[in-house]
Amino acid sequence: MQDLIKNLIQKNNTKIVLIVLDGLGGLPVNGRTELEAANTPNMDALAQTSACGLHIPVSIGITPGSGPGHLGLFGYDPIEYQIGRGILEALGLGLEIRKTDVAVRCNYATIKDGIIIDRRAGRMPSEQTRKITERLQKEITGIDDVEVVFAPGMEHRFAVLLRFPMDLEPDAAMIPDTDPQKEGASPVAPSPLSKNAGKVSRIVEKLIAKVHEILKNEEKANYILTRGFSGMPHITQFQEAFGLNALAIATYPMYRGLARLVGMYAPAIEGSVEDEIKFLKQNYDKYDFFFLHVKKIDSYAEDGNFEGKCARIEEFDKLLPDILRMKFDVVMITGDHSTPALMKSHSWHPVPFLLKSPYVLGGLCNAFSERECVKGELGIFRTINLMPLALSNAGRLKKFGA
Amino acid sequence: MQDLIKNLIQKNNTKIVLIVLDGLGGLPVNGRTELEAANTPNMDALAQTSACGLHIPVSIGITPGSGPGHLGLFGYDPIEYQIGRGILEALGLGLEIRKTDVAVRCNYATIKDGIIIDRRAGRMPSEQTRKITERLQKEITGIDDVEVVFAPGMEHRFAVLLRFPMDLEPDAAMIPDTDPQKEGASPVAPSPLSKNAGKVSRIVEKLIAKVHEILKNEEKANYILTRGFSGMPHITQFQEAFGLNALAIATYPMYRGLARLVGMYAPAIEGSVEDEIKFLKQNYDKYDFFFLHVKKIDSYAEDGNFEGKCARIEEFDKLLPDILRMKFDVVMITGDHSTPALMKSHSWHPVPFLLKSPYVLGGLCNAFSERECVKGELGIFRTINLMPLALSNAGRLKKFGA
Repeated sequence: MQDLIKNLIQKNNTKIVLIVLDGLGGLPVNGRTELEAANTPNMDALAQTSACGLHIPVSIGITPGSGPGHLGLFGYDPIEYQIGRGILEALGLGLEIRKTDVAVRCNYATIKDGIIIDRRAGRMPSEQTRKITERLQKEITGIDDVEVVFAPGMEHRFAVLLRFPMDLEPDAAMIPDTDPQKEGASPVAPSPLSKNAGKVSRIVEKLIAKVHEILKNEEKANYILTRGFSGMPHITQFQEAFGLNALAIATYPMYRGLARLVGMYAPAIEGSVEDEIKFLKQNYDKYDFFFLHVKKIDSYAEDGNFEGKCARIEEFDKLLPDILRMKFDVVMITGDHSTPALMKSHSWHPVPFLLKSPYVLGGLCNAFSERECVKGELGIFRTINLMPLALSNAGRLKKFGA
Repeated sequence: MQDLIKNLIQKNNTKIVLIVLDGLGGLPVNGRTELEAANTPNMDALAQTSACGLHIPVSIGITPGSGPGHLGLFGYDPIEYQIGRGILEALGLGLEIRKTDVAVRCNYATIKDGIIIDRRAGRMPSEQTRKITERLQKEITGIDDVEVVFAPGMEHRFAVLLRFPMDLEPDAAMIPDTDPQKEGASPVAPSPLSKNAGKVSRIVEKLIAKVHEILKNEEKANYILTRGFSGMPHITQFQEAFGLNALAIATYPMYRGLARLVGMYAPAIEGSVEDEIKFLKQNYDKYDFFFLHVKKIDSYAEDGNFEGKCARIEEFDKLLPDILRMKFDVVMITGDHSTPALMKSHSWHPVPFLLKSPYVLGGLCNAFSERECVKGELGIFRTINLMPLALSNAGRLKKFGA
């Protein structure tokens, strides 16, 4: 399918914006979903003249993480392209990942006589993790010809990048988690699980030993457990796949990282949604495709805060006219997955979607909500179809066959 | 999927008609699509008691050519069965293509000292193309053991069939276009691009040289450029795939050709839609399946003539009762793709579809239009599902599994 699209690409001067309201989809509380309860006159008006529908990030009944959710929006099948846990952790901590990197999620732990007695080193505070991790980075910058990059995370968590001098085989990161998943057990050896994983395995062994040597006198954090070994997925870059020069606008590192994985330019920016929209306007002339990520809607939903999620949706709705005034050829508004406040978690529910262009039927939905989108002209479809649809509406796909 | 269907086929005496209103689907102009603006009391009444929906010829967002559009309607996946450009051109010019043929799209061109100085030989008039092509056919009937068939087209265009004495390998037609796509360049050599393309390549080389020898004294049309080399796709024939003896009724050669590709009987006929319907009536007893093609709706849409497209739709609507009186067991009305007059071209939009049989829910759509079909019981589905649906409604498919 991706080959088919690639062969149909034609370039022009159109501009496409994909607005991702993280965790947008919801479920009724007292009869109304978050989108139904929120006062959103601008999105509702837009929905009335747009093509609407709902999309399914992975497959019916499957709840997506943020990685699969965004990959689908970007036009990549999240079942085919699975992003390793280590890579996602490193992206979330703001590390820039290179093609030759192996990423690892790590915990500080307490070991005594070769036995793990606390897998989380007493759930040490983040501040202490930062200090210890900085100390490790100072003392360990490389192992053999491999550069080592540390990044502290929350509580006992941190990430490591092993930066190899050359491209690795696709299966070079097949190393088991060294975390035995229970206290009172020995750590698992990082033995290679594939023929090509020997080199990574040897570096990890040395890393663990070296860290233990440095931290051996720490009361609690005297050892590390490693998980989620993963290399960079081989992803056809966005420009090559879709012929689009893309800018990602996101204030959270994880989403910038996901955008960078597919080759979007994703500068580190900070601030409010209003600031993001200002940045969008400043860069309007320089790119073809804009991914604008709005995080807070999901955060409130994850806390089970229905009213808070509604308020964040309303906040975005007030700003929408600023975006519409920029005259994009194609405007899309959706989420990367549903996060019903009722469930306090991501869910499998299809995500409301709206596409505005001169080439839609419109007139089928009265508002932008889950139940109104069911009535829309796009029906319920898999998320990976969103990019071809956007390209066509922007006049960027040729006819298939004669 | 095709194997699954084949194993479920059971024969009976039911009759199925598939009415293809070419380019049927549209987009709103002043708030109404062509189907909404046209006065179509007969189709609207039929839609009220039919199963309605919209189908997607290739994939969401992909605009199909006529070839992929029809293959889908006939029950063949257009991504799997890609019809070469040469084959389509030859079909459009009314050539009957055999299993061992390689088809080529050709241009007359002007060459001087080995350099193409006019890729279209001054866009010579069709009449002159006809004369020169007849002359070539007289002088070249074969090269080595390969029969050569010429067919003149519009302006500087014509088609050639290379009729080989035996079946070729699937990749035997992998020859690059010899058209350099710009003036001031040498023609590209027709070198084989696959191991099995050597034989076709040698014949093409000789053909080009022979033609040049014959035409060398022509002022403009002294050379030919060749494109779109393609062999016959290996398609399970309609009778074998679906157990149906099928008649194609189409006044344009291209559509008869597409029907013949899948093994329908497609006699050359001429005349109006009324004449087509008469022919349908005359042949009612002799076939199980009837493909009736109505071309003009698309032609007006391609010209951007919204009113003209509406008028052609109304014209068909008036004739529909004649078809309904014949008492087909299953009646389907749809298009091969959308052609919104607004866009003056084929488009990716799902195509309205209606199926009448004794076994439908009905009662969901007030009229036959894009927006009413969204509300229908069939939803939005890929076009290849249309044939199994027709077979089932005709009682021609057994239960799958026990």
